[in-house]
Amino acid sequence: MDINDVDTPSVLIDLDKVDANLKAAQDYANAHGLILRPHVKTHKLPRFARLQQDLGAVGITAQKLGEAEAMADGGMDDVFLPYNILGRTKLDRLHALHQRTTLCVTADNAPTIAGYAARFTDPSHPLAVLVECDTGAGRCGVQTAHEAVDLATVIDAAPGLTFAGLMSYPPQGKTQHVQTWLTDAIDALTAAGLPPERVSIGGTPDLMRAAEIPAANEYRPGTYIYGDRMQVAWGHGALDRCALTVLATVVSRPTPDRAILDSGSKALAADLCGAEGHGHITTYPEAVITALSEEHGIVDLSACAHRPEIGERLQIIPNHCCVVTNLFDHVYLMRNSRIEETAPITSRGRLR
Amino acid sequence: MDINDVDTPSVLIDLDKVDANLKAAQDYANAHGLILRPHVKTHKLPRFARLQQDLGAVGITAQKLGEAEAMADGGMDDVFLPYNILGRTKLDRLHALHQRTTLCVTADNAPTIAGYAARFTDPSHPLAVLVECDTGAGRCGVQTAHEAVDLATVIDAAPGLTFAGLMSYPPQGKTQHVQTWLTDAIDALTAAGLPPERVSIGGTPDLMRAAEIPAANEYRPGTYIYGDRMQVAWGHGALDRCALTVLATVVSRPTPDRAILDSGSKALAADLCGAEGHGHITTYPEAVITALSEEHGIVDLSACAHRPEIGERLQIIPNHCCVVTNLFDHVYLMRNSRIEETAPITSRGRLR
Repeated sequence: MDINDVDTPSVLIDLDKVDANLKAAQDYANAHGLILRPHVKTHKLPRFARLQQDLGAVGITAQKLGEAEAMADGGMDDVFLPYNILGRTKLDRLHALHQRTTLCVTADNAPTIAGYAARFTDPSHPLAVLVECDTGAGRCGVQTAHEAVDLATVIDAAPGLTFAGLMSYPPQGKTQHVQTWLTDAIDALTAAGLPPERVSIGGTPDLMRAAEIPAANEYRPGTYIYGDRMQVAWGHGALDRCALTVLATVVSRPTPDRAILDSGSKALAADLCGAEGHGHITTYPEAVITALSEEHGIVDLSACAHRPEIGERLQIIPNHCCVVTNLFDHVYLMRNSRIEETAPITSRGRLR
Repeated sequence: MDINDVDTPSVLIDLDKVDANLKAAQDYANAHGLILRPHVKTHKLPRFARLQQDLGAVGITAQKLGEAEAMADGGMDDVFLPYNILGRTKLDRLHALHQRTTLCVTADNAPTIAGYAARFTDPSHPLAVLVECDTGAGRCGVQTAHEAVDLATVIDAAPGLTFAGLMSYPPQGKTQHVQTWLTDAIDALTAAGLPPERVSIGGTPDLMRAAEIPAANEYRPGTYIYGDRMQVAWGHGALDRCALTVLATVVSRPTPDRAILDSGSKALAADLCGAEGHGHITTYPEAVITALSEEHGIVDLSACAHRPEIGERLQIIPNHCCVVTNLFDHVYLMRNSRIEETAPITSRGRLR
């Protein structure tokens, strides 16, 4: 299938760039003795999860239970679900998933651990639980090493649970702070007789600086497989290495300085990033996508020497690729501008 | 089904509020001799399209061809598609849709009209085309009355097309400016022997001021069926009339002032609005959802006298309800806190 036969808006994935992005990260991990456990939220495709494992990743990370189930259905058998799983319905599903995968989860509070302990009671097949630590990102996580020891102790005391280590989604660029935080927690846990086997951190922006946090032995990058404007703005990668683009058509040229695309917030997503506008048009780098309505992208061409015509097709690097793949039912896999395959995004919209 | 049996995150639709919102708009339209043609992008459910027609709407509006096809599949037979439809693939689909519905489209440029004229050639069953006008919103549309006459003349000259009128998505709150713009265009078209039969405008924020633009005879409101924080910030409706909420669970309370929800940008969408934060928590109105990551909502509770516990379930009025329904595969229809039915969102993700 030729790229010209793909209707718009659509998502194109450049397989050569995927290969290069994955290899660069795995090479870095190998050079620094780091275990990779990629986050599948970015691609949501079992085939890329398999590719990541074939290159050396130990398993995968999924953020929601439904996403993990879809990955297990796709053949993944080692899944980390770094989320507080609460409620009878989800705990029953988690228990079922535990029967067919090597599974681990997190907790940052006692009620969540109590839920795990009540549902998982078999000492011969315990659920591995890591304690989530807030090392400065201000999201989930215990606030102190002392709290981490308290929760690890509760996990360790539950017959059907195993304390498996620490997990954090660290703040970007603060590697020294994160290293100190984690070292203090590891020391406190070791003193309490519960040395953490795994210390898992993540985030594509600091992936190539992971060695600055030697306290961690596992890394969970997500966006690195594709890259996007946000990552480039944060200092990771370059625009010409971004593997995911949205193919769009110019549907209107109301004024000499304005073009309208058939791709709005339902195709490109409204997420902002450090750079100007809502996406980078590869063939018109000076153009600025100034605003998105739901089904239209509004483009300012005033800085462009050459300007697109009505009907012209463009490739756009979005601000945030992970939320774009969540808007489409399938993506087109492409090599050398030829479409090799159409891949359904099997874990799209798995919110629960 | 009880609301307590609904897992989170999920979308709840309060049917009593839907009924009241639709009735208020239809009563206003009836009182002012205005034809309503609701935009289905908000709900994406044929059942609500039928309800809107049963109350008095003349037909529906859909923004993408795929959305229109899904509505035709659901039984809708009078569809307005106010979009420049370009390219052989879409024109073939448009032609097929024209065989089974009363269909009209728009154009704001000559290449789009040329595409319609080449594909629609049957004078006994012409395609109705309205000319889109940019009355100040800065999106699609011709810039002057003169351009509108030029395009109407081209449409009128094509054997398989009929010039059916003018369409605009007007800027908010500028009713006098829009009235002047449209009156000038109507006068110019009438002088050219092409008086526009339909003059269609839209936008929920100014729905209850539509009578201030007597030049228009058709109105296309979308969000009014549910309402959201953006509409309330823009002066339409009130929070207690919002029919759509996202049901979420508190999964973490890392600090006394912070709660974490299981609903991030993949459930609430990242769209901002005039008000602070990313949604209104009905039972904790002082709480501010300060940030969204993909799967977490971060809540500042510092202004709250009472604070939610881990595991507590909350209803959130989102900033922009239309993009929320595009993220979920189904919604729960509720009356008096009882779930009456689960409705699949049949035109979700119909981007092409």
